[in-house]
Amino acid sequence: MRTVYVNGVYLPENQAQISIFDRGFLFADAVYEVTAVLGGKLLDFEAHMARLKRSMRELDMTLPYADEDLLAIHKALVEKNDLEEGLVYLQLTRGAADRDFDFSEMTGEPGIVLFTQAKPLIASTLAQRGQKIILADDLRWGRSDIKTVQLLYSSLMKTRAKKAGADDVWLCRDGKITEGSSNNAYIVTENNEIITRELSNDILHGITRSAVLKVAKLHQMKVIERAFTIEELKSAKEAFSTSASGFVNPVVDVDGLAIGDGVPGAVSSTLREAYLTESRRTAI
Amino acid sequence: MRTVYVNGVYLPENQAQISIFDRGFLFADAVYEVTAVLGGKLLDFEAHMARLKRSMRELDMTLPYADEDLLAIHKALVEKNDLEEGLVYLQLTRGAADRDFDFSEMTGEPGIVLFTQAKPLIASTLAQRGQKIILADDLRWGRSDIKTVQLLYSSLMKTRAKKAGADDVWLCRDGKITEGSSNNAYIVTENNEIITRELSNDILHGITRSAVLKVAKLHQMKVIERAFTIEELKSAKEAFSTSASGFVNPVVDVDGLAIGDGVPGAVSSTLREAYLTESRRTAI
Repeated sequence: MRTVYVNGVYLPENQAQISIFDRGFLFADAVYEVTAVLGGKLLDFEAHMARLKRSMRELDMTLPYADEDLLAIHKALVEKNDLEEGLVYLQLTRGAADRDFDFSEMTGEPGIVLFTQAKPLIASTLAQRGQKIILADDLRWGRSDIKTVQLLYSSLMKTRAKKAGADDVWLCRDGKITEGSSNNAYIVTENNEIITRELSNDILHGITRSAVLKVAKLHQMKVIERAFTIEELKSAKEAFSTSASGFVNPVVDVDGLAIGDGVPGAVSSTLREAYLTESRRTAI
Repeated sequence: MRTVYVNGVYLPENQAQISIFDRGFLFADAVYEVTAVLGGKLLDFEAHMARLKRSMRELDMTLPYADEDLLAIHKALVEKNDLEEGLVYLQLTRGAADRDFDFSEMTGEPGIVLFTQAKPLIASTLAQRGQKIILADDLRWGRSDIKTVQLLYSSLMKTRAKKAGADDVWLCRDGKITEGSSNNAYIVTENNEIITRELSNDILHGITRSAVLKVAKLHQMKVIERAFTIEELKSAKEAFSTSASGFVNPVVDVDGLAIGDGVPGAVSSTLREAYLTESRRTAI
């Protein structure tokens, strides 16, 4: 049984509870981060904490923990759970209070929850065979750049994809791809240009996105940050997604249409390996 | 201390907890209803349960409770908490499972939480002096008709309104009002026409909205269901909102500009009284 962390206490997972008055439960008033673990070490930890603080700032939430406190909890959970490969999930909420849309009078402490999930990340079926995706309208709220738990729509669409025999969904606004259910989206053109949507309020500012783009540039690959259309996707040479726990995952099929040769492409394979090498080197 | 209801058990509120793995907490994968209580009796109960079932259907959730079971829990909580005036809050979640966007393989039971809030509803300051509101862009997700707990944006804007010395926010899409933070929005024109946005995926299908429109028609008032613009709002004779626990509440100020005479209008006062008379008559 996993050991998890809830509001200052390490607990067996079956005793891990939060108040029904926690605003994370009543108002989706909570943010989160997911940090990958390889060989018992955390990947891109500082970048995740920086984004966490940005999310909280955008929501007028305060973080009463220093980075080193959060790191210590992450490390303790990795150790207590003998986690070699998988992820650590961290959620911070505005805390518990009697239900009221107005939180201006709140005085309580934020809520904090962390747990691990063991998961093979390197030996990934998706990376080997490539992902099948479906497309759906992006009906999420206007601030997808803030990593909140308002994940219902992404969850519904991911589930729809699975039921349709696909692996994931990519969301579209005005005929252009925004991102996947929990990953950023990319295409590679015939000219070997890597295209991914520019940062805005419409997409998550992926930690892995940032790291992979850096790696791509180091490898002399041309990166263009702009939105791409459904048509561009369907005629792309390659397509792939990035995320903290998926790293770089090729896309080989969109709505039943093969992308490129219908097998994982060279660019995504190269980027996956290069990203893994770099992030293992800096893991803590 | 209140008695609340959590997954089959009546508990003191300070022991009322749900699993950190509840999808209501991790994915905002939950729906809710708020039923007003006057004189210890529930208002519009059947309509609330009908809407709850609609919300769940839209999200592929199943409700393992009959209306009479839910009614019994509502009544038990009213009694255990000696609730004369206030509300009963009900939240249903998809249940607890290890964190995964894909819920197609879930087998567990839905989670259920109910609690009461004592609150003076009849002797309402807002009804007496009228509400001051501010306007803000509507950045919520595309299915505001489903009563989910994805309430973060409404909560942020309500809080912004309070901090600005106002009472609430009305949200706008493409220059037209959608609705308030947790209420439907109306204007009354110089010709005494009541205008409120038509039902669609953009707004909550208010139980009180439906009841008030029925009452208005009984009083020979002309009702037009269409979106109205910010300009129409600012030049309206009256404006008001409706909600389950606010009933009918006049709006007297929008972004610092007085609406009509800057005091609660005759139409909203009439509708408030008529709605209360009717809903008390049918309360259970």
